[in-house]
Amino acid sequence: MSDTRAFQALVDTVGADVTARLSDVERRLAEIVEVREPRAAEPGLETLRAGGKRLRPLLVLVCGAIDLADEERSAALIRAAAAVELVHMATLVHDDVLDDAALRRGRPTVYAEHGREAALTTGDLLFALAFDELARPGDEEQVAALSYASSGLARGELIQREDAFDISVTRERYLLRCTLKTARLFEAAALLGAHAGGRPGIAPVLAAFGNKVGLAFQLADDVLDVVASTEQIGKTRGADLLDGTVNLPLIEAALREPSLAALDLREIDTPERAAEVCDSIVATGAPEAVLDEARKLVAEAKDLLRDTVGVAERAMFATIADQAVARSK
Amino acid sequence: MSDTRAFQALVDTVGADVTARLSDVERRLAEIVEVREPRAAEPGLETLRAGGKRLRPLLVLVCGAIDLADEERSAALIRAAAAVELVHMATLVHDDVLDDAALRRGRPTVYAEHGREAALTTGDLLFALAFDELARPGDEEQVAALSYASSGLARGELIQREDAFDISVTRERYLLRCTLKTARLFEAAALLGAHAGGRPGIAPVLAAFGNKVGLAFQLADDVLDVVASTEQIGKTRGADLLDGTVNLPLIEAALREPSLAALDLREIDTPERAAEVCDSIVATGAPEAVLDEARKLVAEAKDLLRDTVGVAERAMFATIADQAVARSK
Repeated sequence: MSDTRAFQALVDTVGADVTARLSDVERRLAEIVEVREPRAAEPGLETLRAGGKRLRPLLVLVCGAIDLADEERSAALIRAAAAVELVHMATLVHDDVLDDAALRRGRPTVYAEHGREAALTTGDLLFALAFDELARPGDEEQVAALSYASSGLARGELIQREDAFDISVTRERYLLRCTLKTARLFEAAALLGAHAGGRPGIAPVLAAFGNKVGLAFQLADDVLDVVASTEQIGKTRGADLLDGTVNLPLIEAALREPSLAALDLREIDTPERAAEVCDSIVATGAPEAVLDEARKLVAEAKDLLRDTVGVAERAMFATIADQAVARSK
Repeated sequence: MSDTRAFQALVDTVGADVTARLSDVERRLAEIVEVREPRAAEPGLETLRAGGKRLRPLLVLVCGAIDLADEERSAALIRAAAAVELVHMATLVHDDVLDDAALRRGRPTVYAEHGREAALTTGDLLFALAFDELARPGDEEQVAALSYASSGLARGELIQREDAFDISVTRERYLLRCTLKTARLFEAAALLGAHAGGRPGIAPVLAAFGNKVGLAFQLADDVLDVVASTEQIGKTRGADLLDGTVNLPLIEAALREPSLAALDLREIDTPERAAEVCDSIVATGAPEAVLDEARKLVAEAKDLLRDTVGVAERAMFATIADQAVARSK
């Protein structure tokens, strides 16, 4: 499913109010990134235009229980949503440098288009702009949540590099990495939404929801890397294998198939060879099992909210949770 | 002058109270960087151990008018000082990637020792940890100042890349770049100190002081790049020439000596050739003129404080301002 169609599906479920707010977030992001030095801002703007499902800002908005009548609160929520997406964008731009990635969402990456230096600095700029959005009185809980998530992102990346090409990585170590690299920012999105939306009381439950959905998202993403075609996901199939990232589908497949456990990951150096190994992983049934785990996490996430928010709101949260494991990026 | 001797000279002037607080900052930095994943934190710790004059944290402390009796305020100041230094460390680590630098303060850079990927991520981690230090109620002015400075740092870097190898860059464009790349963080250090120290009333004057001192620091630094030996500054002489950065000594020298204005910077590709061009720049007298400008900025900075702080405090500010243009790094 294309980004546009995925977005439309979201819109149909979350309704017009949330959709209007998401457009506000998009406008705000463009304002922020188009800073005073337009030429220098170009790679940032391209990253913004490349789009995405905007799951994290959506989570912020829904956790904030958008109240159209309260302008101040709406503005705070839009800032919070923009801040979370800016951190996400920053990490994408830096990740593409780390992964030597030519394509992202089917478009050339900042790294491929403008070079390593521009990508490094553009990521730094987006990151700084994120915190610039959260510097109003009362925002300290949000700053804390976003910086905690951001340091987690970097630590997750460092762990990923440490563990690169090591096929004996444990499931626990993998889950720690995913928690740091992905779940923390979803958790932060929930916390920022709860605080900006003026309902700190349910922040812990929403944070737990965000964490589980984020973890599910990463699991599903790692499955996609193995099972989907390059066309479907807009990047090379088996990209994780090519850069030595041992993901859960591979860990599980290696437990089922000894020839995979004996694999030397450094020898996987062409897209063709990566695709072959992906086929072997699929043959073990491991990706399907990992996807089941992701779906289970989504179900648990939904369950958490049973006594916390009303039925209408729960439907919106459910949409976000389901999107996290939907088969598109 | 070595870092240790420079530090001792500072200590002699600012006195035991400030020195004790600087040691607290150093301890706090070690605590922050040594987060839960010690192996992953190693490059960050090395950056910390590499030291430096710690001018920025010192500026924070002095702007905060350290009161030993007030523990809460002291703790806030130490956090603010640590946050500013973390942002500085983050930019150093990233700058070394951008500049392909093997040495920093006479030691191997994170980039040279651990590779590009580790350096990129370590910079991101240090940056996130900086904001993590500033997430307490009442810190919003500090978050605003630090994120404003941080986005300026990235924009300055982008401008530097845009202008690379262009010998016709104007003095104004150069000063904008220096303001963004250096002066803003000194300005932020002053603002953070003033707010954390509970004297927001004089924050604007202190910020202006920080800005001028920061600009002077960058001018003096650019002079050093041309006049000092590799041994003196712990990095290659003429490093700016080698990576195409047109600095004020070169801009001024090109106005005085037509053969320099006709230079093709892309042809300067060995340390020997860079040293030759440095000699030509020195022969024009331009570096000495730029250093005079830096000293003038320092004098102006000191003047700003005449009616703002008392005599004893002014001596401490003067020490920091003088250090900024002292002939060491």
